[in-house]
Amino acid sequence: MNVHKIAVIAGDGIGPEVINEGVKVLKEVAAIAGDFSFQFTYFPWGCEYYLEHGKMLPDDGLEQLMKFDAVYLGAVGYPGVPDHISLRELLLKIRKGFDQYVNVRPVKLLQGAPCPLKDVTRDRIDMVVIRENSEGEYSGAGDWLFKGKPEEVVLQTGVFSRKGTERIIRYAYELARKTGRTLTSISKANALNYSMVFWDQVFEEIGQEYPEVETNSYLVDAASMYFVKQPERFQIVVTSNLFGDIITDLGAAIAGGMGLAAGANLNPERIYPSMFEPIHGSAPDIAHQGIANPLAAIWSASQILDFFGHEVWGAKVLDVIEQAMVDKQVLTPDMGGAASTEEVGDEVVKILSALQ
Amino acid sequence: MNVHKIAVIAGDGIGPEVINEGVKVLKEVAAIAGDFSFQFTYFPWGCEYYLEHGKMLPDDGLEQLMKFDAVYLGAVGYPGVPDHISLRELLLKIRKGFDQYVNVRPVKLLQGAPCPLKDVTRDRIDMVVIRENSEGEYSGAGDWLFKGKPEEVVLQTGVFSRKGTERIIRYAYELARKTGRTLTSISKANALNYSMVFWDQVFEEIGQEYPEVETNSYLVDAASMYFVKQPERFQIVVTSNLFGDIITDLGAAIAGGMGLAAGANLNPERIYPSMFEPIHGSAPDIAHQGIANPLAAIWSASQILDFFGHEVWGAKVLDVIEQAMVDKQVLTPDMGGAASTEEVGDEVVKILSALQ
Ligand SMILES: CC(C)[C@H](C(=O)O)[C@@H](O)C(=O)O
Ligand SMILES: CC(C)[C@H](C(=O)O)[C@@H](O)C(=O)O
Repeated sequence: MNVHKIAVIAGDGIGPEVINEGVKVLKEVAAIAGDFSFQFTYFPWGCEYYLEHGKMLPDDGLEQLMKFDAVYLGAVGYPGVPDHISLRELLLKIRKGFDQYVNVRPVKLLQGAPCPLKDVTRDRIDMVVIRENSEGEYSGAGDWLFKGKPEEVVLQTGVFSRKGTERIIRYAYELARKTGRTLTSISKANALNYSMVFWDQVFEEIGQEYPEVETNSYLVDAASMYFVKQPERFQIVVTSNLFGDIITDLGAAIAGGMGLAAGANLNPERIYPSMFEPIHGSAPDIAHQGIANPLAAIWSASQILDFFGHEVWGAKVLDVIEQAMVDKQVLTPDMGGAASTEEVGDEVVKILSALQ
Repeated sequence: MNVHKIAVIAGDGIGPEVINEGVKVLKEVAAIAGDFSFQFTYFPWGCEYYLEHGKMLPDDGLEQLMKFDAVYLGAVGYPGVPDHISLRELLLKIRKGFDQYVNVRPVKLLQGAPCPLKDVTRDRIDMVVIRENSEGEYSGAGDWLFKGKPEEVVLQTGVFSRKGTERIIRYAYELARKTGRTLTSISKANALNYSMVFWDQVFEEIGQEYPEVETNSYLVDAASMYFVKQPERFQIVVTSNLFGDIITDLGAAIAGGMGLAAGANLNPERIYPSMFEPIHGSAPDIAHQGIANPLAAIWSASQILDFFGHEVWGAKVLDVIEQAMVDKQVLTPDMGGAASTEEVGDEVVKILSALQ
């Protein structure tokens, strides 16, 4: 039997609470399917670990994770540990260390999901954002000069390599070709006179190889506007690390909220493990109350299923999430319900097993 | 009599069409008020000029503008001239050359304005975004190495100076104190480990001097989400050049569309002329048809009035815009009407003079 070895980094705040439910769902799916299973190994890394050990994970952390087929991450960050430490030293370290250069973030309005936009029907919001996930604005290059002096100046350098830019754009073109959908690039060449001019150029170059793919190119500011005004303009979207970060939170906002947004950090060559996460934060304000919405974690569990070739099951989990929202019986407070995190997970499992 | 000398750069596409109406309104206001007047001088700079002369404006362009009290700009950019030339060499050149380091962009849902959000009442969207406008991500610093080789790499460097960061943040604190409103900083220190860590630090430092101002700090991704979900969280917002660009287009989207969004580029010390513009683009697709919405240009005319100390008149112009939208009689197609650009301008003038 096919055993998928998953490293679970439940992380901080609501992370462990929502991941529990995702694990529950994956176990149930495997039990029903019968021809594959999951093996979960937990790693207690995160901010508590940091406060104890002075680091977010052990020095050989990535090495330890290498033994797994995938990483399932809850959330990272907690008051008391500066974000630029907690996030850069754990989440971003794994993304970069494992060359998870593709960040796949579906922005899809499921039936029953709360949408803040007027006149938006389900089919108007149905896109996949392919975000560059390994370099660009997040390279971490920079300098801080003349600290504390009047002439103090701080530099932050985005690094866009030919290889890094080509491979993400190519990934997006492949997806667009395979799915027959349009491809939109989001950039900002009118102001970022090096990086984004290069980005646009590569987008055009690679496009030569995909004459059958219909393309568009938007400035990030205009794209933000259209996400709200005419989200139906977008199908497959490809963009840089920072723009992808912003645009996918915006995507989450229009497609039901952060409680529903999942992301896959892929190393498509499968040389390194890929990582799956709800894209919400650790939400310290509601941690330990058992009221966090686990649906984003469950959606990312469905991405795990897709990634291992169980797309039929991945789609079923998504259907079940949808059904739970249409039923409106068992939802967390952020979605207008009164259920606990655990009850929502149980409900998903119940609907799943009733499918049989 | 107080004569305000305005340099008009109507620019490209719909620029001249909308600016005409703004000029009309300013003239009318001056005629009614009686104690000040405007003198308009037109400069034919922009993309057509570029195609003829190989530059967007003459070499002594800024020198010529120095003789004026303000610049009134339509829109810049046209197919055939790459954006990173047209915008950087005209719009951004003036912003930077005249040290217009404060970009004031109201995001206010006027009565009658179309709002794409459900359940949003007028008072829920009423903020002012103070965008850094002279440096940061837009510094233009960077490099393009190993062009065309596999190791090709492109660098884009954001430059955040102590002086530049302090002055914009201080401006925002002053405004918050003066108006008694909350101040929200938008940054991204968890990923941009130099520039935004510095930004946050300066925001806190300067805050020490303004203990009476209530503050918040949001990550740009979270802020984008809240612009859509809970815009009432924001009153005065201060942010960097790039984030301000994105967030104000998003602001425009929730507050009635680009047809309504205005921006003032201020040199608060008044050493150089300040510049006022609708923040929409040149919209080549609808240029020369006489259907562009002039309300953003008229709103920026109201900002001109404010800037010259005629705040009462600035507020009146805003009221009139609001009334035109409530009446719904004379609006351009983008706002659901059937009127021409000129008719909307005439309507505003008509309502204005009826106020007497
Ligand atoms: C936590 C933060 C560093 C991260 C990012 O900016 O990538 C998050 O916002 C995300 O989108 O996954
Ligand atoms: C045209 C472009 C360079 C400009 C900017 O990014 O600042 C515009 O989008 C704006 O917001 O004024």
